[in-house]
Amino acid sequence: MTYRTHHCGALRKADSGSRVTLCGWVDSRRDHGGVVFIDLRDRNGITQVVFRPEEHAEAASAAHGLRVEDVVQVSGTVAPRLTGTENTKLATGEIEIVADTLVILNKADVLPFPLDEDSVNEDLRLEHRYLDLRRPAMVRNLTVRHKVVKTTRDYFDRQGFLEIETPVLSKSTPEGAREFLVPSRIFPGSFYALSQSPQQYKQLLMVAGLERYFQIAKCFRDEDPRADRITELTQVDLEASFITQEDIIELIEGLLVEIFREVRGVEIPRPFLRMTYQEAMNRYGSDKPDRRFGLELITLDEVFKASEFKVFRGALDNGGTVKAINAKGFAGITTGQIEGLTELAKQYGAKGLAFIKVENGEWKSPIAKFLTDAEKQALISQLGIEEGDLILFGAGDWETVCNVLGRIRLRVAELQKLITDPNALEFLWVVEFPLLAYNAEEQKWNAVHHPFTRPHADDVALIEAGEYGKVRAQAYDVVLNGVEIGGGSIRIHESDLQAKLFEVLGISPEKQQLLFPHLLKAFRFGAPPHGGVALGVDRLVMLAVGTENIRDVVAFPKNNRGEDLMMSSPTPAEPRQLRELGIQVTRKA
Amino acid sequence: MTYRTHHCGALRKADSGSRVTLCGWVDSRRDHGGVVFIDLRDRNGITQVVFRPEEHAEAASAAHGLRVEDVVQVSGTVAPRLTGTENTKLATGEIEIVADTLVILNKADVLPFPLDEDSVNEDLRLEHRYLDLRRPAMVRNLTVRHKVVKTTRDYFDRQGFLEIETPVLSKSTPEGAREFLVPSRIFPGSFYALSQSPQQYKQLLMVAGLERYFQIAKCFRDEDPRADRITELTQVDLEASFITQEDIIELIEGLLVEIFREVRGVEIPRPFLRMTYQEAMNRYGSDKPDRRFGLELITLDEVFKASEFKVFRGALDNGGTVKAINAKGFAGITTGQIEGLTELAKQYGAKGLAFIKVENGEWKSPIAKFLTDAEKQALISQLGIEEGDLILFGAGDWETVCNVLGRIRLRVAELQKLITDPNALEFLWVVEFPLLAYNAEEQKWNAVHHPFTRPHADDVALIEAGEYGKVRAQAYDVVLNGVEIGGGSIRIHESDLQAKLFEVLGISPEKQQLLFPHLLKAFRFGAPPHGGVALGVDRLVMLAVGTENIRDVVAFPKNNRGEDLMMSSPTPAEPRQLRELGIQVTRKA
Repeated sequence: MTYRTHHCGALRKADSGSRVTLCGWVDSRRDHGGVVFIDLRDRNGITQVVFRPEEHAEAASAAHGLRVEDVVQVSGTVAPRLTGTENTKLATGEIEIVADTLVILNKADVLPFPLDEDSVNEDLRLEHRYLDLRRPAMVRNLTVRHKVVKTTRDYFDRQGFLEIETPVLSKSTPEGAREFLVPSRIFPGSFYALSQSPQQYKQLLMVAGLERYFQIAKCFRDEDPRADRITELTQVDLEASFITQEDIIELIEGLLVEIFREVRGVEIPRPFLRMTYQEAMNRYGSDKPDRRFGLELITLDEVFKASEFKVFRGALDNGGTVKAINAKGFAGITTGQIEGLTELAKQYGAKGLAFIKVENGEWKSPIAKFLTDAEKQALISQLGIEEGDLILFGAGDWETVCNVLGRIRLRVAELQKLITDPNALEFLWVVEFPLLAYNAEEQKWNAVHHPFTRPHADDVALIEAGEYGKVRAQAYDVVLNGVEIGGGSIRIHESDLQAKLFEVLGISPEKQQLLFPHLLKAFRFGAPPHGGVALGVDRLVMLAVGTENIRDVVAFPKNNRGEDLMMSSPTPAEPRQLRELGIQVTRKA
Repeated sequence: MTYRTHHCGALRKADSGSRVTLCGWVDSRRDHGGVVFIDLRDRNGITQVVFRPEEHAEAASAAHGLRVEDVVQVSGTVAPRLTGTENTKLATGEIEIVADTLVILNKADVLPFPLDEDSVNEDLRLEHRYLDLRRPAMVRNLTVRHKVVKTTRDYFDRQGFLEIETPVLSKSTPEGAREFLVPSRIFPGSFYALSQSPQQYKQLLMVAGLERYFQIAKCFRDEDPRADRITELTQVDLEASFITQEDIIELIEGLLVEIFREVRGVEIPRPFLRMTYQEAMNRYGSDKPDRRFGLELITLDEVFKASEFKVFRGALDNGGTVKAINAKGFAGITTGQIEGLTELAKQYGAKGLAFIKVENGEWKSPIAKFLTDAEKQALISQLGIEEGDLILFGAGDWETVCNVLGRIRLRVAELQKLITDPNALEFLWVVEFPLLAYNAEEQKWNAVHHPFTRPHADDVALIEAGEYGKVRAQAYDVVLNGVEIGGGSIRIHESDLQAKLFEVLGISPEKQQLLFPHLLKAFRFGAPPHGGVALGVDRLVMLAVGTENIRDVVAFPKNNRGEDLMMSSPTPAEPRQLRELGIQVTRKA
């Protein structure tokens, strides 16, 4: 027995006269004077089936009782549709099946929500995810996801990389991001952690001499609920030996070109633009610049270095900066919008948001009166100010100003609808990240990338000199449309340098021996120079299909509190299970 | 900068005269009158490098100080080796590099064990897994593993299957095998379970209309320590709609043929042999027969149905069976070996092990005196008894007798070294498993496969009639050389039938609503007929590379107590972490 001869997207006019059997779901049913029409749907398409009572009374009678989403098997003959009744929107729109036999494989109750309704509550959809996934957009998203990972695997295989699985049940490192703990039954009181990243394993694979490793790896982070976070991330994870930053950049560009060729049919130009972290921050106020529009930050330190305007002059005297963006033609911004932008600026650490609106040849601005004519002239020339423009300023320490104006820039682009091409794909690399960043609150240096990142060869002496803030990392991020889709670094491969870096990060030698003895030891037995990268599969697929909801690209996502509404998970455990694990619940939600 | 121009397996005589740069590990070093020879190793091979002090003093002097496993970069000129000094065992054995430059990329301490030593303690090797993986056998195993999964993915992609990731953080179902629990921080007192199998998710994908799903999936089972068990298994997981057992068998045969063609270069004949569970048990005493040798079980019920020998007659009178195997030419078995076999028989539930040795025309046996001449004649004819044979008997209930003789059969094959071709690949399908098995201890019916398995269409009435033991399942296992490498079934897709089966298995309607409401509900909204299969990747790779140690095919295995000796995991958690999770440790190892 075979269930079907064809898929529902397969038949054409040339098949007329063939006897066929199809299976699928009743997508819709219409009765016209006793004749029953159904649209039969499967993963591959839709085919119209017609039941004529005068020819096949039994089948037609059964078809009359069909409901939407019933699962059926239909046999009949392919016939061309009458002229004028073809459906040009369907690949099978020129034919229909004149059915003689109908087998109902499974009846369907009325669905809890209509599949073609967009405004259905997300919780209801997640609870019935097996229905939500019937929507054509979801099938397309999962198909694109399949293609992205397939293309990735084919690409790395061709490049001599081996896909190697690393453990999910990993060692707990309480220093990092929040991790999921897994109690051990054989060693009660001890715990595994779900792998947050294969980082250490892949470096150890390099020590092992595997040279070229990759993996599409599940990573687990117990993060606080946020709309775009999920507990299980998937990343393209890669590590190679005897490789430079340049080699890795080339490799990843090649991959991304192939992926977008495969799933979007576009040819991304290479090489991608490259920008240092300094430049990205100075020009876009972000380490992941969205280059689908201009609206760049302009540095005005020279203009205001001797200004009488205290706010700007003070920032510069304190070693800070003054920058501005010119929102061309946005002088008509509403008071509400200006207030919104000011709120945003404050949220990211600014005290306020100075602005100038140029209307009817006049500078309408709370700060205009503090500016000299020379300063105004300089602004006009450097910002290209014209009638109708809106200028927004930031003054203060460099990082805060960049950050604030970077956020303002994105919001203004939204308000002004500056992204005009929905298909635009602006890739770029951000390079020369700082290795270390000082956290004033914790009073300690943190790794910007991670503790295994290699300092720039020219800057190693700066570590010895204690000038941590100036050390550049051999780290690189790849950005698409303002989203970081991946990042990596060349790693430290010397035990002594690694120990030194741990020390700078405040990890004492004792703690190093507790957390990373394997790595420090492994580096003493012939560790090759190596480096790698990780790309976020979920984000990449989101960008490829054009959605902003990460749950649109995951088959069975949890909600943003980590609940699986379909399976009803997590759940209380049985007392027997807890006894076996040697744990006890002390607090309940 | 590029680290190298060639891999260490690349250069040939035709490259003579080229200037090259290689990177790798010092595999060995020999000094001959000031001239230093090193074998340089990378993942791709070994190349001989010679340092001549008279030509390049500095490099030669540095080379003199090299130690095994140092990581170096060598530049020089390819030269043909002198006639008579070629190494035919090496792909690069006709050439050597006359080095002019040596860069030491990283020094290596003396390794804790020699890489080419076979008898190194496994714990020591696991602790230094990054060194253990340098052994060529391990590199080959991981390469084969990569190829197996790559071939699998390519195959299913071509067949229109989508690879879809299902959650690792899943719902706890305390009924099944022991699972790992993961405490939720957002819902203290509640737990996820690590997925033991994507079973329910993949069935829900079928309800969703995805039709053809596969995944190379990590599965987690918290099993008790055993030599061949690991906590993280990898399986090829597959599900399809509108598909029959026949379709799935054909699909999987196609896959296995491709895998063994790719990794072993052999062409497996199709179709595979097929055998019912009944036949497999009757002839091989196993539901996973090893067919690399004969030694089949012979049923002797007819011979002894009216026997005076009480042991055999009694078994038959009680509805049991009498079977025997003829170990040809094994009459010379030692007393110790006979005792070992008897122990084994008892271990699997027999009271003892009756035997006959045919030596010098005489039947040496504790039971010969109870047999009539007619019975002896029947045995000679049915078992083909000749001088030198050893006959081993089992009598009792059918399942025990099959099981015992099945184990005896395997042990005898080991003792007699009956597997003569180490490359033999004997595939077969076992079909028509029973759906349910009665557990006398628990006094309940259990699912032989799992609770979602579909009964044979002809046997559904037997369920209604309460004749559970007679119901055959639409389940199938694929066996290679006596190892079950995969199994699957056609599933139940009707809510009512599924509920009925749950009931038979002792899962009350209330419990069903607690554990499986999503499935019972989903089946009411248009669930298509569907079925699938899962293959064990670890076992498949073990058979492909010819190892019996599962840790040989996993990059970073835990030991059989679930410890990661390299990372030192599991470990006690920080009090802060436990507080956040709302749990407390009540017992420590």
